[in-house]
Amino acid sequence: MADSRQIFYYDRNEGSTEISRTAVDKRAKEDRPGVGELRLDALTNEWVAMAAHRQARVFLPPKELCPLCPTKPGLESEIADSNYQVVVFENRSPSLAAPSVDWSLPTYEGLVTPVVQGAGRCEVICFSDQHEGSFGKLALPQIRTVMEAWIDRTRELSKLPYVQHIFPFENRGEEVGVTLNHPHGQIYCYSYLPPRVEKMYYVAKDYLSKHGRPLITDLIAREILDEVRIVAQNAHWIAYVPFASRYPFEIHIAPKKFVPDLAELSEEVADAFPEIAKESLLRLDGVFGIQMAYIAAWHQAPVRTGRDALGLHLQITSVRRAPGKLKYLAGSESAMGAFIMDMAPEQSAGQLREVQI
Amino acid sequence: MADSRQIFYYDRNEGSTEISRTAVDKRAKEDRPGVGELRLDALTNEWVAMAAHRQARVFLPPKELCPLCPTKPGLESEIADSNYQVVVFENRSPSLAAPSVDWSLPTYEGLVTPVVQGAGRCEVICFSDQHEGSFGKLALPQIRTVMEAWIDRTRELSKLPYVQHIFPFENRGEEVGVTLNHPHGQIYCYSYLPPRVEKMYYVAKDYLSKHGRPLITDLIAREILDEVRIVAQNAHWIAYVPFASRYPFEIHIAPKKFVPDLAELSEEVADAFPEIAKESLLRLDGVFGIQMAYIAAWHQAPVRTGRDALGLHLQITSVRRAPGKLKYLAGSESAMGAFIMDMAPEQSAGQLREVQI
Repeated sequence: MADSRQIFYYDRNEGSTEISRTAVDKRAKEDRPGVGELRLDALTNEWVAMAAHRQARVFLPPKELCPLCPTKPGLESEIADSNYQVVVFENRSPSLAAPSVDWSLPTYEGLVTPVVQGAGRCEVICFSDQHEGSFGKLALPQIRTVMEAWIDRTRELSKLPYVQHIFPFENRGEEVGVTLNHPHGQIYCYSYLPPRVEKMYYVAKDYLSKHGRPLITDLIAREILDEVRIVAQNAHWIAYVPFASRYPFEIHIAPKKFVPDLAELSEEVADAFPEIAKESLLRLDGVFGIQMAYIAAWHQAPVRTGRDALGLHLQITSVRRAPGKLKYLAGSESAMGAFIMDMAPEQSAGQLREVQI
Repeated sequence: MADSRQIFYYDRNEGSTEISRTAVDKRAKEDRPGVGELRLDALTNEWVAMAAHRQARVFLPPKELCPLCPTKPGLESEIADSNYQVVVFENRSPSLAAPSVDWSLPTYEGLVTPVVQGAGRCEVICFSDQHEGSFGKLALPQIRTVMEAWIDRTRELSKLPYVQHIFPFENRGEEVGVTLNHPHGQIYCYSYLPPRVEKMYYVAKDYLSKHGRPLITDLIAREILDEVRIVAQNAHWIAYVPFASRYPFEIHIAPKKFVPDLAELSEEVADAFPEIAKESLLRLDGVFGIQMAYIAAWHQAPVRTGRDALGLHLQITSVRRAPGKLKYLAGSESAMGAFIMDMAPEQSAGQLREVQI
């Protein structure tokens, strides 16, 4: 890219000729923002990333100016080519970036923990070159290509020495703060274990040492046994509303056989994902007959630790609890971390199963 | 109240005659909702409260039907009297309620942890009998009366055997899901340590054992030394943007001398609170010249543990990052617990200090 960010095209070769990507980004070269910093919140021992340059980022531009559409006459977008299947590139306003100094994460030392550079990496993944649409409405082969991009990026990003955790996710809907409507996701790479991962890591390590099996393996066995919260399944994947879900509509999609992350998925299991992902998302949109705002978050094992304990799964949470009503994270959830769920998970799963698709 | 919920009036005696509250709630008796349940999320060892009956609760009624205004001709509200100063009563749709069986919290046992009743208590506190207005615009003696109600309720609620943690808070603004515009707050009593409190508890216990002083005492000393993040202070309280704040506008208001909770505040320190609270909230509203949506959350020590380690402070977080722009808890914050802050805390404190009030 003009400002030397990296871009990666992911293409299925459907015809007889190899697709070649040679388009050049003709935009003027721009300075890239500097690296932010990590500060430790001593009350919780949690890192907070400071990225002050993000305040001015692009906010819901009109369709004609969409930076995620392919380049066309009158629009020089982030993608130099005039078409693409799936494309991944570095975020223009990254929350976390490659460190400019010799870098390692300091240990927690409470109030005297030093401030360090906000090392990491943020990428954007465009699910389609069509501006209208959504992940759940993509054709199955297209979802498979997105999956391939997630797998490949997880594999490649794991090689960066300062990356400890890789998090592919999608925010959908203005209700969750989406600033660009074009169907896309993001991949955040953290140089630390995010607080939630760190908590899940300790719980999972403890379980593994006591029971000799990963926690999620037994958890999925319980969901299969209980049956009542299952939304969909196929030979390799299961979609369910978790036993203690935090949102009225929360779906987890997990491979039935434990794998730590996307990079370790077999081709066969990866091939079986598009079908269950599409079904789950269509059921979600079908509950109220409206596009549901959601956060779809890939939980993976960290890059360098806990790989025998923490298993891959996709967590989809919707903030909608009824037409015209959102689930807000207010006092109890936000300040206390104590979730109040307004609906029985079994009822939620029932409503999702009843949707005609 | 007609359905046997408790109500408490808090009055300053300003005239020569004692105020007496004898009004009777004449509404038809209604069945109260049952107790919900607590389920353990085994992936994180966190309790989630299930309160399915709350789905149908009242949602932004028009002003004439406000259930928090005093009763008047044509409106039989939650408050039977025709006026009040500050009033506290049990929530009609509580997330947590008095258990109906002999009750104790089970220990964490991962996937086989039993489901238990959602024991606890939820109260509503009305800051004024005037429908229009906001906490920050109350007269100082009125804020002092609210403070007295918080203190008294904390003291009284601590006596309930199933209450482990007491959380007075205010959600303000439809942006954070407020369902009633009348100035009011809530008091949630949990029968478990909320996940965030539990985390802060372990960090604070560890700090106390290593340094012999409460963490928050040293943290406040650092804020005073650094000076640059202080928003306001008086003889007994300090308001500051924390070193690792998570929101563009986040203000903590803490007593300078350690106390575990509201119930243990001296009269002198309590008397000094209204002034700094009012100043902080007026500065917050002044930054963009608009009413800021916020969550104001009292962090207290738990009722029965960690009382030498965890100190009282009020955390005010606004979801607004600029006029027309909100800070959403999207993928990174929501699924990973990893906060990205778009503004330097020092800049935020500077903007708050510059507001003319």
